[in-house]
Amino acid sequence: MAGRPRSIEADAAILEATLEEYKHCGYGGLCVDAVAARAGVSKATIYRRYASKLDLVMASTVAAVPDATSQPDTGSLRGDLIQRLHALRDLLHGTGRVMRRLVSERGDYAELDAAHAQFVAERRAATASLIERAIARGEIAADVDVAFVSDLLAGPLFYRFLVHDDVVDDTYIERVVDAALGAV
Amino acid sequence: MAGRPRSIEADAAILEATLEEYKHCGYGGLCVDAVAARAGVSKATIYRRYASKLDLVMASTVAAVPDATSQPDTGSLRGDLIQRLHALRDLLHGTGRVMRRLVSERGDYAELDAAHAQFVAERRAATASLIERAIARGEIAADVDVAFVSDLLAGPLFYRFLVHDDVVDDTYIERVVDAALGAV
Repeated sequence: MAGRPRSIEADAAILEATLEEYKHCGYGGLCVDAVAARAGVSKATIYRRYASKLDLVMASTVAAVPDATSQPDTGSLRGDLIQRLHALRDLLHGTGRVMRRLVSERGDYAELDAAHAQFVAERRAATASLIERAIARGEIAADVDVAFVSDLLAGPLFYRFLVHDDVVDDTYIERVVDAALGAV
Repeated sequence: MAGRPRSIEADAAILEATLEEYKHCGYGGLCVDAVAARAGVSKATIYRRYASKLDLVMASTVAAVPDATSQPDTGSLRGDLIQRLHALRDLLHGTGRVMRRLVSERGDYAELDAAHAQFVAERRAATASLIERAIARGEIAADVDVAFVSDLLAGPLFYRFLVHDDVVDDTYIERVVDAALGAV
């Protein structure tokens, strides 16, 4: 028990060091020795927690993003989706270069692709469940194409973040949500 | 004059070799020696054509994408935007990993950022001019937010290409255009 605070500290240092190394070296170049040196722990300490480099990278990415399981419940689909896009904006700004790196490495490493696809699928499923809840309470039509609406919501934010740097403010988010809802 | 076909061949080899090196090594790691070796030309041949590494990378990127200046003119905004998104889809598939690399390196090299921003601005201006033509002929309201519509059009395609791999077929493109036009 006495070791617990120190262990938590080591955990945080390992995850932070992993993100730094990943940003600079990518998945192929990421070296557990370098993570250990940066975090000030031994390689053994890392391998006691993470069985593989993949586990390490995915754990550090997931730790860096807001929790997708905390679902908004504002009472209206519009309100829920606005909150959801606020969380996406936080995720994009919070992960920054790590997100760019993940995007650029898609197709390079099968194991990373699989983990990344699962991560994306979980977050899209969380958005889908908001839409399905609105269908259940009769707020929108039952035949809405949930994947398409999800693209209309997330697409503009990713595009601004990844391709050009126009600001995504609260008004912009509301307009994106209204455009997506207008299409269904 | 006798040297012309050979010179054109060398040009194509240089641009292709640059894209390959860029995909694998990024901007920081791209080495003109490696481009010369891969293209089978001398470094002097490259530097006679391109004053800098930046010129070389941007020339090879621009050469790889469909010409943005060939504007569609179908008679309707909907038709024009559908053609425009077909061209964007071709661009994304045609550039593939080069596009991912460009996206991931934003913020890393000021000179590359500036060239990339100009490239994006030119293509967005080409889309804007289609919308402005439709305003001029009274097809849509004059107070349309052109940048916003442009995000609604390009966002979903970039998102599918960069984040998840659902297919962008002709029907998808039509639905994206209809959603964007429905929002204005």
